[in-house]
Amino acid sequence: MKRIYLAGPDVFFSNAGEIGNQKKRLCQRYGFIGLFPLDGEVAAQTCARDTGLAISLANEALIRECDIVVANLTPFRGASADVGTVYELGLARGLGKHIHGYSNDPALYTQRVFDHAGTGTINEQTAGDLRDKNGFKIEEFDLHDNLMIDGGIHASGGYFLTADAPTLSDDLALFERLLIILSGTCSDNAN
Amino acid sequence: MKRIYLAGPDVFFSNAGEIGNQKKRLCQRYGFIGLFPLDGEVAAQTCARDTGLAISLANEALIRECDIVVANLTPFRGASADVGTVYELGLARGLGKHIHGYSNDPALYTQRVFDHAGTGTINEQTAGDLRDKNGFKIEEFDLHDNLMIDGGIHASGGYFLTADAPTLSDDLALFERLLIILSGTCSDNAN
Repeated sequence: MKRIYLAGPDVFFSNAGEIGNQKKRLCQRYGFIGLFPLDGEVAAQTCARDTGLAISLANEALIRECDIVVANLTPFRGASADVGTVYELGLARGLGKHIHGYSNDPALYTQRVFDHAGTGTINEQTAGDLRDKNGFKIEEFDLHDNLMIDGGIHASGGYFLTADAPTLSDDLALFERLLIILSGTCSDNAN
Repeated sequence: MKRIYLAGPDVFFSNAGEIGNQKKRLCQRYGFIGLFPLDGEVAAQTCARDTGLAISLANEALIRECDIVVANLTPFRGASADVGTVYELGLARGLGKHIHGYSNDPALYTQRVFDHAGTGTINEQTAGDLRDKNGFKIEEFDLHDNLMIDGGIHASGGYFLTADAPTLSDDLALFERLLIILSGTCSDNAN
């Protein structure tokens, strides 16, 4: 059975353990083994910093031994996906793994960044040179997150599924739909 | 000469071209070839989405051909480093490159996340179970960003330099200090 690393900010949810178990059960239902990040399961070291570094090493090892990464890319504390999740997606891409993602927020990245960091209304600005309140350029590529994320998934032949309407970060409908696609029991044109 | 990929949100700065040239000149001064992301130099495709994907592919190719990544990890639009930069750092780690970073913000990640997304004061909460205003767990590991970032750099034997006092995102003092360390002309105990 193929092993799927379950990347996402889910480890920070108040119901992290429950979500992890639900995801693992769904993986099993569709013929996969789900590997949930080990943030809560690594033994405390002599100082907090070393504990953090040990969790990182344990998660990197899980990613190295998986076949597929499925990332919860629903925006987390800002306009973009969780940075730890994005690091893991990049790592997996570099290791030659199959990478996929889903987002429970249907909005395009340009609008999200503007809502998060823009000033005035988007139509008052020059298309093609959109800026945030600090003068930093805002990407305008009709993508769902920073172009390295969408691009990496696309280049790897992966799927990046997005919700038709906003749902909570821990909603698993899209996650399950992705597993169904990956299990080969149906096809999808979302790639 | 070793090639350094110059990852960072610098491509979004209003002075992106100038910063890219300054970084490339500093690389040359210390015996390296600097490769700046190609966000502004890839030809427009027939639609915005394809242009975004083409930039991603071009940047991934640059990272594959570099020896070292030096990432500007100064927080960008939130408590963490720019997500595109973080993806690139992960990709480089997966490809077995040497990865390094610097941040012009000296604050630890726990405090930054709390300032960005917390509620009340940090001392009112239970140490070891710090939560943001949405109930999401806040990392408490005395690190400078999400543990996967600090951890990946540390595991690769890299440096993550941080400023003694906050400076602007485009301040290059730490970037130059990192080049000096990497050029082997002095040592540093920041690793």
